[in-house]
Amino acid sequence: MGIDGERLLADLRALREIGKDGTGVHRPALSAQDIQAREWVMKRMGEAGLKPEMDGLGNVLGRSQNKGPAVLIGSHTDTVPHGGWLDGALGVAYGLEAVRSLPDVAIDVIDFQDEEGTYFSCAGSMAFTHLIQPNDINGRRNADGELMQDRLNETGLSARDWFRLESGRYKGFLEAHIEQGPVLEREKTDIAIVTGIVGAQRWQLQFKGQADHAGTTPMNMRRDAGASMFRLANRLLDEFAKTAAADTVWNLGHAALLPGASNVVPSGAELFVEFRDLDPKILEQFEAILHKAIADVAPCIEVTSLQSMLTPPTPMHDTIVEVFEQASTGLGKTHKRLASGAGHDAMYLAPQMPSGMIFIPSIGGRSHDRAENSHDHDIISGCEVMVKAAELLAEND
Amino acid sequence: MGIDGERLLADLRALREIGKDGTGVHRPALSAQDIQAREWVMKRMGEAGLKPEMDGLGNVLGRSQNKGPAVLIGSHTDTVPHGGWLDGALGVAYGLEAVRSLPDVAIDVIDFQDEEGTYFSCAGSMAFTHLIQPNDINGRRNADGELMQDRLNETGLSARDWFRLESGRYKGFLEAHIEQGPVLEREKTDIAIVTGIVGAQRWQLQFKGQADHAGTTPMNMRRDAGASMFRLANRLLDEFAKTAAADTVWNLGHAALLPGASNVVPSGAELFVEFRDLDPKILEQFEAILHKAIADVAPCIEVTSLQSMLTPPTPMHDTIVEVFEQASTGLGKTHKRLASGAGHDAMYLAPQMPSGMIFIPSIGGRSHDRAENSHDHDIISGCEVMVKAAELLAEND
Repeated sequence: MGIDGERLLADLRALREIGKDGTGVHRPALSAQDIQAREWVMKRMGEAGLKPEMDGLGNVLGRSQNKGPAVLIGSHTDTVPHGGWLDGALGVAYGLEAVRSLPDVAIDVIDFQDEEGTYFSCAGSMAFTHLIQPNDINGRRNADGELMQDRLNETGLSARDWFRLESGRYKGFLEAHIEQGPVLEREKTDIAIVTGIVGAQRWQLQFKGQADHAGTTPMNMRRDAGASMFRLANRLLDEFAKTAAADTVWNLGHAALLPGASNVVPSGAELFVEFRDLDPKILEQFEAILHKAIADVAPCIEVTSLQSMLTPPTPMHDTIVEVFEQASTGLGKTHKRLASGAGHDAMYLAPQMPSGMIFIPSIGGRSHDRAENSHDHDIISGCEVMVKAAELLAEND
Repeated sequence: MGIDGERLLADLRALREIGKDGTGVHRPALSAQDIQAREWVMKRMGEAGLKPEMDGLGNVLGRSQNKGPAVLIGSHTDTVPHGGWLDGALGVAYGLEAVRSLPDVAIDVIDFQDEEGTYFSCAGSMAFTHLIQPNDINGRRNADGELMQDRLNETGLSARDWFRLESGRYKGFLEAHIEQGPVLEREKTDIAIVTGIVGAQRWQLQFKGQADHAGTTPMNMRRDAGASMFRLANRLLDEFAKTAAADTVWNLGHAALLPGASNVVPSGAELFVEFRDLDPKILEQFEAILHKAIADVAPCIEVTSLQSMLTPPTPMHDTIVEVFEQASTGLGKTHKRLASGAGHDAMYLAPQMPSGMIFIPSIGGRSHDRAENSHDHDIISGCEVMVKAAELLAEND
């Protein structure tokens, strides 16, 4: 067995032409370019001997005609607006290359719809795993206000059924992705074997005080929403750092003051806080730190907190982690275990079947950006590991 | 001598009708309403026996025909957009009432142009005191982009000369104003005698880091401009509070992060810092704290600081402070010495002649707002002190 690196790169470059946007790709879910890319994937699936089909959301599944249970490999070909050429596409192209390199192995390839959340983040994988029903997409709109349902009608997809996972068909799900971070590149490591997809919490805090003239109002007569926000932000930075495990990450990504003038004591403030870890206990501790800090804000300031996202951690399956490690070691690749700080379709597959992921190095850690890129040798290297892992998993009892 | 409280209130209410805006007034400098108000002031000056004139900026000066040296009393009748009815107008109305109540005393009344900075903050008093020349207003625009020079042409004012302070004409300048703060009301005090107008510094800080995915970038690989801003803001709040004198005030009135998304490590941050005090040593200490804090920001973050305002403190003249205290005590009013946290025309008069100010209580401390108001009895009370002080100053050798 050996993969054809040039054939793999040719697939990725061909996909890049569909919705090409400078050095990147603009291919939001259900756009004309997205459908065109998915039709191209179906054509390549057919040429590789799979039986391709597109469902009522635009998910594309190529079924192997070989005797199963099968290995499922895939990711997504939709992109964020003006995004990169590898995010998602890499995992689909690896699936195609695995089928071509292992013609006797039962491998299905899947290209999930709207992983990037143009209308509904991971709609395709959530539908596939029975987590959402057709009603759930009602009223979902993209940033331009277009309804998902309208686009499904216009593309003729809405008449079709949705794919639903067939019980017992699969031995496991393998997804490859670019790292979207700087770790592999900086540590000169070929492959990350994903231990799990971190859980995340996002909070939006609103502080309400009173606007006053900042020259004429004595300090002890103020209700300064901004000062309370700065105090709380600083405390979170201190206490999060003390409580964090090695891989915990957090971010205070948005802050604003009202009315926002030099000479007016802030009447309002807004702060977004998020934190992520694979360990639910760390997430609980961070949440407790946040609540305690809010409780300790000066009583003259009213604080409201809204949890805008809550995703539990999703560990990857030990069997798959081991299969990837065995493949990587066997091929002489350097690898490290890493938690995924970003969400992927594998989150929704993991509760249904043994699932796992690998990352390849991202140049400069860039992603969701036209500058996103990986070296050809890393792209090929990751595919070798994926194909070897698929073979090992297929042989696994 | 006794003032006519109803006549005074009638003047203020008549002025309020010009540019009336709900319970407030919209009378920006050089607007039709502003010119109309100034013409109304000239009419009332003439009725009071003064010789009124408007200059090339719209300053209105009513000259006494009595033998001098004269006492100069006044303030401004322009307002901030959708502002209050007393800010500025009070000081002009007190001047008119002083002239009417003291017909034998040499009192000039002045109504300065654009104290509120529609085009050029305190343009009128700066011109009067020779601090600006006609060239200096070139290119000055209001928030709608209109040129000050165009408005001066349209109103026919640009053909006229500017008033310039005549050396030796005045014994001193007296300005009355609403407090624009909560101190007098909370402390149930009739009059504030202004010890000086505080100096102020305003700084705009820009932090430059690097945008990264907040889920996939380990904490130790980030260049987080936002975290540096929060750290610095918190340090300023701590150290300012430790260094402050009783009356020092400071404000962090604006903060923003770029790009401002929950899941993106901030690549940029902006923070506005200001502080005010009457004591130049305190201002120096605060500035040193700021520079030290900037120097200590993480070296991976680039910080630039721009000083957007630097106003030195302006002490009021001892003679005038004493005259106001004597007047207030003689009339049985309660008073306290207070620094003015806001700027006033008296800042520019003070280097030219003995100058001083009084404040009357503001209801709820509100100003620059339609809700700005003072009780009638406080308005009358302040005028009694002003008129008595003018009489005492005129008698003073």
